[in-house]
Amino acid sequence: MERHFDEALQELHKDILKIGVMTEEAIYKSIESLKNRDKAQAQAVIDNDDKIDELELLIDERCIDLIARYQPMAGDLRFITTGMKINAELERIADISVDICQRVLEIADKPLLKPLIDIPKLSGIAQNMVRDSIEAFIKKDADLARKVMLTDPEADKLRNMIVDELVELLKKDSKSAERAVALLLIARYLERICDHTTNIAEDVIYMVEAKVVKHHPESLA
Amino acid sequence: MERHFDEALQELHKDILKIGVMTEEAIYKSIESLKNRDKAQAQAVIDNDDKIDELELLIDERCIDLIARYQPMAGDLRFITTGMKINAELERIADISVDICQRVLEIADKPLLKPLIDIPKLSGIAQNMVRDSIEAFIKKDADLARKVMLTDPEADKLRNMIVDELVELLKKDSKSAERAVALLLIARYLERICDHTTNIAEDVIYMVEAKVVKHHPESLA
Repeated sequence: MERHFDEALQELHKDILKIGVMTEEAIYKSIESLKNRDKAQAQAVIDNDDKIDELELLIDERCIDLIARYQPMAGDLRFITTGMKINAELERIADISVDICQRVLEIADKPLLKPLIDIPKLSGIAQNMVRDSIEAFIKKDADLARKVMLTDPEADKLRNMIVDELVELLKKDSKSAERAVALLLIARYLERICDHTTNIAEDVIYMVEAKVVKHHPESLA
Repeated sequence: MERHFDEALQELHKDILKIGVMTEEAIYKSIESLKNRDKAQAQAVIDNDDKIDELELLIDERCIDLIARYQPMAGDLRFITTGMKINAELERIADISVDICQRVLEIADKPLLKPLIDIPKLSGIAQNMVRDSIEAFIKKDADLARKVMLTDPEADKLRNMIVDELVELLKKDSKSAERAVALLLIARYLERICDHTTNIAEDVIYMVEAKVVKHHPESLA
């Protein structure tokens, strides 16, 4: 039984890595579709979301089954319940990528308002945060999770810059309101993705150290 | 032991009801602070969020403790893991109320752009969805959860109306960009609250009927 449990746990690792990679790809492709005003790519991200949804359900079932079948204690139990939470966060990140693509479809027929520099930069930060937070979970690496959390204020700052710039643009040229609002929402979406990865990092630190950094970011210092 | 488990489960019911009520209040007060441009009330909602965060952690601990101590099978296990998910959703709804209040603080010194009718209406829908989804969980009432899910398209429609109206307003009067953008974001925040309650309702239906409505809203018909 011990061996079966370890094998099942390994399967869980693999599936969470897989949903992590799929989610990171969804973010990347959504911003690529924005940069290139590529409706087909935006639609592909939207269509692919079903596969991520299916994997989320499968992982959820696997976690409940693991608990019910092996009745793991302490550390293993907390690893599995943390896995359930991370799984839900990743599925939501993928949903936000779909939101981004829906905004892309709305504005793809019009020229871009301005060259995109900061939005792809924010997206890059978000993707790294996703990758690192999952790695931190699998390796039970609280230091890496802490690194993810410390990135979040940087993302907030960049998002604020983007929003301020777009509001200024709106004031000067109200004709482009739809496109400016769409970019403004996309910047917020990326920030929400960063927030979700911060949730993952918090859960990992709590799992490893049973230390509540959640809601107390000052304890990171 | 049987009796102790039931008592612990009753405590869990009570705590989830409590965090539900606190969350619903946070939504209500955030929109009241917007209507009345009441900075003190907005700040009070922000300050009170710590209490909701603490309760979330307590509930999470209680759930893991219940699983580790009593090793509940099947139905009870699924009730507890569903409780953990709902708890996380509620905490996030409370966080969104804080986001609303932060926008209120930004614009409270200026007069309202227009009389608020649809935003409070959307807030009312969101509050009812929160209340009904929690009741559906405690009573294991899949029909009530289904009712919550069927409300979501109504909320989406109202949010679209609000956003369209604000974009028109932005086009006509770009000077009021900050205030229009703040209202636009608040409408989106309320929609996200509705999305979170939809997640709760989906989880309840799955718990009761082991039927995946998640990601397949057409199966509601």
